[in-house]
Amino acid sequence: MPKEAVFNGNILLVGFGSIGQAVLPLLLRHFALDPARVQVVTADGTGANNARRHGVAVTNTCLDPGNYRSELAARLRPGDFVVNLAAGVSSYALIERCQQLGALYLDTGLAPWAGAAEETSLPPGERTRYALREQVLSLRRDFKGGPTAIVGHGAAPGLVSHLVKQALVDLAAALLPREPRPCDRPGWARLASRLKVKVIQIAERDTQQALPRKKTGEFVNTWSVDGFVGDACQPAELGWGTHEHEFPHDARAHPYGCKASIYLDRPGAAIQVRSWGPGSGPYHGYLFGHGESISIADYLTVPHQEGGAYRPTVHYAYHPCDDALLSLHELAERNWECQPQHRVVQDEIESGSEELGVLLMGHARGAYWYGARLAIEEARGMAPHSNATALQAAASVVAAMRWALREPHRGIVEPEDLPYDEILAFCRPYLGQVGGRYTPWSPLQGRHRLYSEDVDSSDVWQFKNFRV
Amino acid sequence: MPKEAVFNGNILLVGFGSIGQAVLPLLLRHFALDPARVQVVTADGTGANNARRHGVAVTNTCLDPGNYRSELAARLRPGDFVVNLAAGVSSYALIERCQQLGALYLDTGLAPWAGAAEETSLPPGERTRYALREQVLSLRRDFKGGPTAIVGHGAAPGLVSHLVKQALVDLAAALLPREPRPCDRPGWARLASRLKVKVIQIAERDTQQALPRKKTGEFVNTWSVDGFVGDACQPAELGWGTHEHEFPHDARAHPYGCKASIYLDRPGAAIQVRSWGPGSGPYHGYLFGHGESISIADYLTVPHQEGGAYRPTVHYAYHPCDDALLSLHELAERNWECQPQHRVVQDEIESGSEELGVLLMGHARGAYWYGARLAIEEARGMAPHSNATALQAAASVVAAMRWALREPHRGIVEPEDLPYDEILAFCRPYLGQVGGRYTPWSPLQGRHRLYSEDVDSSDVWQFKNFRV
Repeated sequence: MPKEAVFNGNILLVGFGSIGQAVLPLLLRHFALDPARVQVVTADGTGANNARRHGVAVTNTCLDPGNYRSELAARLRPGDFVVNLAAGVSSYALIERCQQLGALYLDTGLAPWAGAAEETSLPPGERTRYALREQVLSLRRDFKGGPTAIVGHGAAPGLVSHLVKQALVDLAAALLPREPRPCDRPGWARLASRLKVKVIQIAERDTQQALPRKKTGEFVNTWSVDGFVGDACQPAELGWGTHEHEFPHDARAHPYGCKASIYLDRPGAAIQVRSWGPGSGPYHGYLFGHGESISIADYLTVPHQEGGAYRPTVHYAYHPCDDALLSLHELAERNWECQPQHRVVQDEIESGSEELGVLLMGHARGAYWYGARLAIEEARGMAPHSNATALQAAASVVAAMRWALREPHRGIVEPEDLPYDEILAFCRPYLGQVGGRYTPWSPLQGRHRLYSEDVDSSDVWQFKNFRV
Repeated sequence: MPKEAVFNGNILLVGFGSIGQAVLPLLLRHFALDPARVQVVTADGTGANNARRHGVAVTNTCLDPGNYRSELAARLRPGDFVVNLAAGVSSYALIERCQQLGALYLDTGLAPWAGAAEETSLPPGERTRYALREQVLSLRRDFKGGPTAIVGHGAAPGLVSHLVKQALVDLAAALLPREPRPCDRPGWARLASRLKVKVIQIAERDTQQALPRKKTGEFVNTWSVDGFVGDACQPAELGWGTHEHEFPHDARAHPYGCKASIYLDRPGAAIQVRSWGPGSGPYHGYLFGHGESISIADYLTVPHQEGGAYRPTVHYAYHPCDDALLSLHELAERNWECQPQHRVVQDEIESGSEELGVLLMGHARGAYWYGARLAIEEARGMAPHSNATALQAAASVVAAMRWALREPHRGIVEPEDLPYDEILAFCRPYLGQVGGRYTPWSPLQGRHRLYSEDVDSSDVWQFKNFRV
């Protein structure tokens, strides 16, 4: 395979869990890169043998608020690339430091320092992705034109923002064929508004099953347990659309910042929403707070236009794998105190797939899903010891790094700032089956079957109707 | 083993699922009974080979509202015993017919005809166990002193009513040592009232795990899937205590009958409550409507006394096995329309146990659990091809039949009408570890950890605090 990009700097992988282990072989496959130029820094030695097998050096160091400045300074020269794949290493801190040191940066989701989801000295509103995002974006003021730092570019957040654009393009082709392809943020927002997209769900359904089964006191997942539990315990958050009639009784608005989203005064793992995927059919997913719920809603906002402002409701609907669902049930039983045993399943997976799509609703055709389904067997064929979840994320990481190397002075950017078609084209071979599907499904389908339910029948697409 | 009871009538087992298959060997072990005197009637041939291996004849007939009168008349003589272990064969219909034909009767739970939980022409209040119980008990007027008919005598309902009495006796020994042992219903109610028991939970935690794992579209359980799904879809119901401050927003009272219980206008599978067991620790269980929630609350009511009437809140808190929990999640995703594939696991179970107890709360020692935990290996040692869930229920069935043969003219009775000590003594060898435990646990333990929660802190034992 011809190497697509030449990179003469060093790459520092912070964290080497399931995504890191899937990223490394893709980096070596797609970049003309001497493995001696890659370094892994990991808190607990996870995957160290795997890294060394690729000729990559591993240092066991836990980056924390006390040491990250000096640890990064000792390892980085201008033009190097930091890839933050650790749960519990602050995006804000590393981005600021990389800007100071002239290094490129990417992470797969806005991360706080470890334990932040449990930091009850902060009120829930300050434990949100919203608060993290506002902090990170505020660095733009201090580092104009600095080295490119891509915030939240794994599968979700990351890939899904590009799937949204592809879905908008598909809908425009069907419903507004004369509309020109948007070329900037106001253009995309105007298109979503003209299409009358009311709701965008990030619909993720993981059906991977592993053996042995989850035991009592064990949290099992297909990716970082620390990351997952952090997501689960942070407040539920959603981009808040202009079509919504009823502000949820347990919701709170933010008094500052872009105000594109709201949060619920409950952990994401306590809130379920109705969603749909072509493989799974109708399902109930958890409404974890996720960066893309805010960034997509913010990006697609039309603040002033005839007929009033426009913004879609945007939220995540995640049905994790069966053992992770059981782990969440147990986590709730433990009043959100994490189980002592953690297990990320890779080689133990027996069957299943990762279905990740975006579901755009409320337009003239009802609901349109665009996304990808990757089976575990396909994933293993492309990256041994990986799984479907990790591979989709890893492809998105490498695609964005490739772009950043070409555009090294773009400062702090979000997935929506990257070219969706280029990213999707790169990722496609790693995503499994990719495509779009219209569906007659709505959150009111099949309701009231045994009991009357409290719904808003004046508008199918109200958030109230999605909530379980 | 010496046979304990001689029985010269015929036994008709209606239904032969997991409980029936565990009951038969116990019957043959404990009764001097020619297998030719036992007959199985089953709708679908489940377990037929198993029955024939014991020398028992099997007829494939589905009892339904059109045929049960003649089918029973053709098979029964006075003094015969009908054991209704089928999901979907009406308790009311069979009890009435047995009274007419002079046959003894037992079932393991108030059952409606198949499909009743889905019978949306009936309002939710008429789909409750309460309505079924009122109908069945109304037969007492027509058949005074008729043949003994025991309603709801498996594990829960059934055994648990006797566990409650044992727990009350234990509490009295600790807290009211001079109180005489109650000998009748007013005595038990007075004792519960004097002990200030506010809440009685039927705490069931099934940790049995089987292979292969549940597939999409499959409902997996350790006992009848039809029975389980019927329970899951009926309204949540609970005996409603006199100490409760707040009537739940979604609750309804019944306009007729004993009024010992209320129901929620939601399926039991949509309502979770906090509970505790010595093996499981704190857990979240489903509040299925169950006969014992009503009969125990009714039995322990003191209608008039100085200081006001007394009744405890009584409800079920069921954490089924992992695959059943996943099946319930999927059932909700299907808007309560049952999965097409059903699987009851017996020999496929690899590990786990059934912990069934009663948790009496609000007295001077806080909370007291009394119950049993039976591991799958122990269950298999006592009854091959059985599982822990079925064996606990089967022992309770046989114990009650033994009593009924000695007391054949008691008419329609509930578990509370049987001698608790005799039943427990018979069942004990089949229950695994049996015993009592005080616990400092309460439903407010560990709350408010990450978020403030809406609780009633003026009284720990309010239903509001149990609800998830």
